[in-house]
Amino acid sequence: MEVLFTFVPKEHQQEMLKEEFPEVEFHFTYHDKSRLSDADVIVTYGEDLAAEDIEEAANLKWIMVASAGVEKMPHEAILEKGITVSNVRGIHKTPMAESVLAHLLAIKRSLPAIYERQQQKKWDRKIRSSELAGSAALIIGPGAIGGEIGRLLQAFGVSTIGCNRSGKQADYMDEMVSFDNILDALPKADTVISVVPSTEETRGMLGSAHFKAMKQDAIFMNFGRGDLVSDDVLVEALKNEEVAYAVLDVFEQEPLPEDHPLWEMENVVVSPHVSSHSGRYVERALEIFAPNLKKWLENNSDLTNLVNMEKGY
Amino acid sequence: MEVLFTFVPKEHQQEMLKEEFPEVEFHFTYHDKSRLSDADVIVTYGEDLAAEDIEEAANLKWIMVASAGVEKMPHEAILEKGITVSNVRGIHKTPMAESVLAHLLAIKRSLPAIYERQQQKKWDRKIRSSELAGSAALIIGPGAIGGEIGRLLQAFGVSTIGCNRSGKQADYMDEMVSFDNILDALPKADTVISVVPSTEETRGMLGSAHFKAMKQDAIFMNFGRGDLVSDDVLVEALKNEEVAYAVLDVFEQEPLPEDHPLWEMENVVVSPHVSSHSGRYVERALEIFAPNLKKWLENNSDLTNLVNMEKGY
Repeated sequence: MEVLFTFVPKEHQQEMLKEEFPEVEFHFTYHDKSRLSDADVIVTYGEDLAAEDIEEAANLKWIMVASAGVEKMPHEAILEKGITVSNVRGIHKTPMAESVLAHLLAIKRSLPAIYERQQQKKWDRKIRSSELAGSAALIIGPGAIGGEIGRLLQAFGVSTIGCNRSGKQADYMDEMVSFDNILDALPKADTVISVVPSTEETRGMLGSAHFKAMKQDAIFMNFGRGDLVSDDVLVEALKNEEVAYAVLDVFEQEPLPEDHPLWEMENVVVSPHVSSHSGRYVERALEIFAPNLKKWLENNSDLTNLVNMEKGY
Repeated sequence: MEVLFTFVPKEHQQEMLKEEFPEVEFHFTYHDKSRLSDADVIVTYGEDLAAEDIEEAANLKWIMVASAGVEKMPHEAILEKGITVSNVRGIHKTPMAESVLAHLLAIKRSLPAIYERQQQKKWDRKIRSSELAGSAALIIGPGAIGGEIGRLLQAFGVSTIGCNRSGKQADYMDEMVSFDNILDALPKADTVISVVPSTEETRGMLGSAHFKAMKQDAIFMNFGRGDLVSDDVLVEALKNEEVAYAVLDVFEQEPLPEDHPLWEMENVVVSPHVSSHSGRYVERALEIFAPNLKKWLENNSDLTNLVNMEKGY
């Protein structure tokens, strides 16, 4: 039984795995696919496997993706060979929810203006701050991450509206609306936060009509995937002041091209897809992987965080 | 019965007061003390009254301070004439707690680095963020504001240690320590947050020994009063890397002099005493004032938020 990591955990994390699973042969490599043909299990960030790799990995039965999104994986090749896929859904929830709250509070409490005045050594108390308390937020994708964002927002006295495909109740949401009825909810939201993955339904889900329906002083935050809205629609909405602020961690094209207008627009924060970063990332991924591997070795394929590759999440 | 405001609420707020209290003569002025001699009640931000003003205000029985600190008031003159003082303790809690969380989350989630890269149009994902979750915070002054900070920190999975004079239990604190034993608690805290007012006990409360006792990667936040620690001690501690970060909303001398070293120090945020700013400030102050005025007119002097001018809070 061989497990191939396509990234390299810390020394002590490698040792821990070897100790816990003496019967398993672990390979920790980076950009080196020479072990592919023998691997029974691959642990990957999900961006380094092509259809040919799946072909080559004749023994491969399970891919554990140490990421939430699987859109860069070769879906057809994986489906064809009936390979099990699991991810680390949920481990992003703490760092991502903290990032969303950080950006939102920073705007409400005028941190960009405070930092700017400090650079100018300017003691200027004419800073007009507002409050998060008492506002309303629409959370597109109230799953593990969206729910954690909702939980924290509620603690700040924010009312939460969840938006998912079915409109069925989700945790930490005061109200729900379905994807189909999102236009009804947009005018109520002071903040619109998307954390949806890239699926057939979410790609291009927000068009110019959606931005026109938002409050003019709304803050739009995309922390899911960049293809939720085209950059053109977004830039246009911002130029027309249909919303007041955009905080973007994801973009149609990443890296965001150097000459892209978003870099320099007023009231836009460009975050280079780092909202899930955390010093505790691999530690948490292994906390999900180890129990799953234990099940796998016991021929129990009811793994935590299974991914349906046909649906894409 | 005359009520003199030394600041000018919005038109509709003035109208509301006049409507609710037709028997009262209101004067809303700014930097104009011509009505002092007739005022029975003064509503002030607490920075514009000198001992002579108290002398001149022959009818004055009650000063409502639309601020939390009363240290700029002429204590002796007020005590001598037995004037009732009340403040708006508590209305700062929401904006201040949001500011504290904003600054803390901004540091943990690397917002200054993200903003900087955007200015350089630099897509650089090598951003090392950490998490607030799982850390410990020491809150010096776990009253209305400190308690609200504690409540929010707990929601983020932070363990809270409250520090007050007696060491008696305070809301939203997992542990308590007395002022006298603060040195025992400092080494446990990842964040040290002060929101204490300026009193005999808190002035100069933190010396260099206290900073030496803190974790080297601790974040020190002063949102109370600048005389808690001398600027020299603070600058020295930062230079010696005894703590990793300081976020300061208050200073020994305000405005902070243009040539002060704190403006330019690495890992220091200078906020120009704006953490309590909020578009809802006067609205909330009046929500405290109006019921108090009603009591006052009914000869009920058991006002909300009475201040003991001998203690200073």
